[in-house]
This record gives sequence, C-alpha cells and structure tokens, in this order.
Amino acid sequence: MLSWVPGVACSGVSCGVKADGALDLGLLVAERPAAWAGTFTLNAAAAPSVGWSRSLLGGRLRAVVVNSGNANACTGRAGTRAVGLVTAAAAEALGCGPHEVAVASTGPIGKSLPVHHVIAGIPRAVELLGPDVEPFASAIVTTDTTTKVSSAPAGDARVVGVAKGAAMVAPSMATMLVFLATDARVAPGSLQGLLSDAAAATFGRICVDACESTNDSVFLLSTETGAETSAAALAGALREVCSDLASQIVKDAEGASRVMRIEVSGARSEEAALSLARAVAASALWRAAAHGGDPNWGRILAALGSVDRSLDLSSLEVRIGPEPVFSGGEPAGSLELAAKAMDADEFSIGCVVGRGPGTAEVLSADLSPEYVELNARGTT
Amino acid sequence: MLSWVPGVACSGVSCGVKADGALDLGLLVAERPAAWAGTFTLNAAAAPSVGWSRSLLGGRLRAVVVNSGNANACTGRAGTRAVGLVTAAAAEALGCGPHEVAVASTGPIGKSLPVHHVIAGIPRAVELLGPDVEPFASAIVTTDTTTKVSSAPAGDARVVGVAKGAAMVAPSMATMLVFLATDARVAPGSLQGLLSDAAAATFGRICVDACESTNDSVFLLSTETGAETSAAALAGALREVCSDLASQIVKDAEGASRVMRIEVSGARSEEAALSLARAVAASALWRAAAHGGDPNWGRILAALGSVDRSLDLSSLEVRIGPEPVFSGGEPAGSLELAAKAMDADEFSIGCVVGRGPGTAEVLSADLSPEYVELNARGTT
Repeated sequence: MLSWVPGVACSGVSCGVKADGALDLGLLVAERPAAWAGTFTLNAAAAPSVGWSRSLLGGRLRAVVVNSGNANACTGRAGTRAVGLVTAAAAEALGCGPHEVAVASTGPIGKSLPVHHVIAGIPRAVELLGPDVEPFASAIVTTDTTTKVSSAPAGDARVVGVAKGAAMVAPSMATMLVFLATDARVAPGSLQGLLSDAAAATFGRICVDACESTNDSVFLLSTETGAETSAAALAGALREVCSDLASQIVKDAEGASRVMRIEVSGARSEEAALSLARAVAASALWRAAAHGGDPNWGRILAALGSVDRSLDLSSLEVRIGPEPVFSGGEPAGSLELAAKAMDADEFSIGCVVGRGPGTAEVLSADLSPEYVELNARGTT
Repeated sequence: MLSWVPGVACSGVSCGVKADGALDLGLLVAERPAAWAGTFTLNAAAAPSVGWSRSLLGGRLRAVVVNSGNANACTGRAGTRAVGLVTAAAAEALGCGPHEVAVASTGPIGKSLPVHHVIAGIPRAVELLGPDVEPFASAIVTTDTTTKVSSAPAGDARVVGVAKGAAMVAPSMATMLVFLATDARVAPGSLQGLLSDAAAATFGRICVDACESTNDSVFLLSTETGAETSAAALAGALREVCSDLASQIVKDAEGASRVMRIEVSGARSEEAALSLARAVAASALWRAAAHGGDPNWGRILAALGSVDRSLDLSSLEVRIGPEPVFSGGEPAGSLELAAKAMDADEFSIGCVVGRGPGTAEVLSADLSPEYVELNARGTT
C-alpha cells in the first residue's frame, strides 16, 4: 500500500456521475492549509474547474475535489455554477473556506455535470478519508486501464503522486490530472518553479494523439511537516515521480500497445529538437506502422522534413532501437533487425539531425484500431 | 471517355514496380515542348524526383514519367541516379532532351526503386500513347480505390486534370500527384501564378491525416494550341478542376467513409481562420468521433482552443450541418439532429470564432480503424 505523506489523506467514492456505478469522486485533503503549486492547460476552451483552481494559486489549499466521468468543460454558466456549488459543499464538510478548495474534472466534454450527485457524495468522501492513495487513484480514472501512482524520496522527506491519463495526450501539456504531495520543507516561494520545471520536462514531453485537453491539471500540495530539504533534492524527487507517472500515462494511452522514446539530438536548439521529436510522436502514419511493428522509417523522415525545411539528409542519422535505418543520406542497416527492436513494450527512435547542441526526448505510443473504435463511440 | 487537350497524350503500363502486376508506369507527353508550371512539397525529405522536376521550372516540358508503387524518396545516391536514368531513357524514346522530361514517384518511402523495370517499360509506354486519360490515371494510383479525373472549360479552351491521393494528406500541400493540361493561350509568364493560386486554394486546403508527403507534386502543361483565353477564365477553370480533384482525394482517403467541410469565419485573418480549420481537420479524436457518426463537439472546441489561446467561448458559435451545438458560451441544439446531419457522405462543420474578417474552409475525412490497419502493414 502506498500512503500519502503525513498530513495528507484521500478517499474515493461512487457518487453517480459514471452510469456504471464505478468510483467517480476523489477527495484529496491536507490536514492543515498547505502551500501548493499547479500547472494547467493553456487551452482556451479550458474547463471552469481549471479557471477556478488556477485563480487560487498564491493561497493555501485544504482540499482538491475531483470528479471523473464528466469534464464539465464547455458547459457554459451551469458549469461555472457547478464549480461554486462543489467548492461550497466541500468547504462546509471540511470546515474551511471555499477558496481553500480546488477542483478538477475529467471525462467527456460538453455534457452537463450532475452536480447534485457530486455534492451528495462529498460528506461520504470526507468520512472515508485515509492515507492509502488507491481509492483516490481509482476514483479519478476514465478509460485508463490501470491506476497510476508513484513516489520517491526527497532527502529525508518524500514526494507521492497519482495520475490519470487515457486520451487527449498532447504536447502543450499532456492530457491528464496529476496530484502530488510532499512533506519536504523548502524555501518558501520555490514550489511553483520546481513544479513547473518538473512538469515541462515530463508531462510536457509526452505526446500520444496530439490532441490537447481542456482539463489538464497538475497539483502539488506541500504540507511542510517533514524534514527540511534542499530545493535540488525536491526537484530530483519531483522529476522522478512526474517522469514515472508520464511514462505510465503513455503506456496506458487508449489502445496503445507499445511505448516509443523519440530521442532527437544535433538540432540547433532544444526547442528545435523538441518540435522535431513531437512531429515524429504525432505522425499518425508512423504510429500506425509502430502498431504493426513495421520499421517504415520513411515516415519518420517525412515527419522530420515537415518541421525543419532545411533538414540536411546527408547529415541525418536515424535508428530504431540500436539498428541504424538511415545514415549519411542513404538507407542503412537491416529492416529485420529494426523490426525486431520494435517488437517490445518499449523501444527508442534516435534521430541525429545535425551538429547543433539541441537535444530533446518525447514519449509516444502506437496508434491502434482500438483507439479509433473507442473514440467513435456515441456521446448521444 | 475523358480526353486530354489536343497535343497531349498519355499511357499506362505495368512495368513490374508493383509486385501484383498492376499498372505502375504512367507517361504524359506533349506533342511539342509545352510551357508549364508546377508546385511541389516543401518537405526537406523531398524525393529526388521533386528536386529534379522543380529544377526544370522556367523551361519547357515534353513529358512527365510517373511511377507508382515506390516513392523513390530517402533512397540516397541510388535514388538520384534512378531519376537520371529514367529521364535519359524517356528522352531517348521521345527524341527530346532529358531536361524536357519531368519525373514523379509515389508509394512507400525509403525502398530502392527497381529502375531497370521503369526503363524497360518506357518504350512500351511510348507505343501506347493516346488521348484517353484513364490508363494514365490508373497507372499512378497507390491505395486509391478509384481513379481521379476532372475537366472544365476555360473560355473556349479546356483544363483537364488527373490526380492520385490516398494517405499522407496534409496541410502544407496535400499528399498527392496532380497532372493538369490546358490548351488555353494566356499571357506568357502568368501560368505559374495561376497554378500556385489554384493549388493553394484547393490542394492546400485539404488535410486528412496531417502527415506531409515527400512526393507532392502538381504539374500544369500548357500546349497553347487552343483559343486565346483570359487569365480569369483559365484561373476559374483551374480552380474548378483542382477543387474537384482535391475533393475526390479527400473522399477516397485511406479508410475514409465521409467528407467533412470545416468552415471557419470571424477570425482575425484568413491565416488565423485556416490554422483553426486545420486544427479541427487534424484532430484524431474528432475524426474518430466523425467515423462513428458521433456529434462529440467538445473535441472541436478543444482543437480550436489549442490553436487560439485567446478564443472567446462566449462569442463562439459551432454547428454540425445546420444544427447549432454550441452558442453564446453554452451547449445548444439537439445532439440527435447533429448526429443525423453527420449521417451523410459529406457534412459541414461551421465555426464562427469572433467578429473578424478571416474565413477559411478545409476539407477532411474521418479516421477509421481501416486506416490504421492499412498503415500497420509490413514494409519488411
């Protein structure tokens, strides 16, 4: 059993948002008002939960209320009202102010949230609060097939994290909800920078279906009850937990059967390397080939060439796993060995695009017929 | 039977590039050296055929040699040599200079072109030259399920066109080969501008899988044997033929079952409207929903919001067919009626994103499990 850090508790209940009776309401609570940091989707169609939670940055948090089964995004005034009702209900149940309660939602966009179910579920969720992360981790999933949890030591303190992923996994921020807590005590004011850096280096570098979400949110609660910790130690622990959760999100992406680690180097800048890696990660054709275990590397070159118009093929090196497939302007290596390298749960693609200093790594996954079938299903 | 304009002939033969013995070598010939214009992929991994043909712009053309079944892209020095051998063979067979012979290739990337097959096929292709477009149209297809031909009057002259599409259909230029011929006589030097405008407004506005190709090419041969024609009349005819072919390409995109016409208006500029329309066109999640006939309009809003960070939902209007689904910041209309509108070979999506003057229209198609299955197949 993985527990939250001391001073943090959670629960998960079924409140009736999901029609099948699965857990759909998660409550994360800090015993005392906690310092916190957050990063949120940049999407202009962001859900009101995102707007509300973002507006609380700079204050302290007692709780985050999370519902799955409904994103409460693009739901107009009713959606905004729902956020107000939920935070008021949680504040009353916990004896705190509504501005100490953040909210996150995930599920289909554009459907009215049955807010009375959520409100009715809150007192039960408060009763069930405990240290085990699992009920909360289960309550926040949508089409995820597994819960996603991780932890790492930060000096003598700890970082614990829980995530959900599934679809809408895209560059600007991976589509997901992530909840982190630490008991590490670090210099006040450093928390947001540490979280933003960790999120950019991990969740910001996964791209599955290239569809950006309206509900992406990462929360980090800091109880400051544990050991005094260096910023570097906390940064390392955050990076480790976020990286592990990001990888779990890609691995469990809708319909995915294998993870691809796309490594670009030799670009003129990190930014340039990142956009090249993302182009490969987002190529539907390459991802379909990856699904079939087919080393159709021409699609990698086409993706690279669509982003960098002056890419020089004669100095381009591409490998699949350890096998070179294109080198010095020429096809290279053995397709059979490249195919063998792809026949794994995870494989890497290396692209040396020149002699510049820019490197970047992006995680993606294959595109399967199951992804399409899952997403062709009716909202009506 | 659709014929080329007078002075232009074509043929299609099976030369052995395609393993199944299907037609795979098309020859398009102008009786006399013809003025011409062309537009080509901007991809840095462009095939040597693209580089060669582009280098001929400004001269006159006697022929275009097209092979299907192999893109001859990313094939190194052997690929470049192959282009030289093919143009030399065609020049010899036709009694012209190699610099009067353009080349186009389409098929898998990165596989060595069996150039001796192509060379051996050329004399037979010359023998079979005739006015009917169909053998040529058949010889240039890959996974297309139909040939794509179109024609329109340009004043008292004509424009005739043939295209192939299938996959790698993307914004920067639709992935495809297009061959146009006209007998219209217009002011010298105006041809390239007329073609570039027509291509940008048609092939440049289709986006299916958002994967840009290494082999996109559009050729326009002008025999100048027909009636003197105003530039406006030729522009209109080019636009009509290109628009028809672009629509045929989307309709016959790999695995596609329905065409979507994405109309964006009210943007601050045409460019802004175009990038919003392309974002909707490229959304794997929305395209999967479209495949299932599911009016999951939240995915349209998420795509719009990922491109325009300051999109104002309160002034956004989205409709599917004639049915409003989002209006004045609120969900609207009937999902059942929206679903009914989607149950057609073609339907439109209207997005009024503000009060600006920018409008754009992009054609796309749905994403099906068949697309993935087709592209997961082995190149090994």
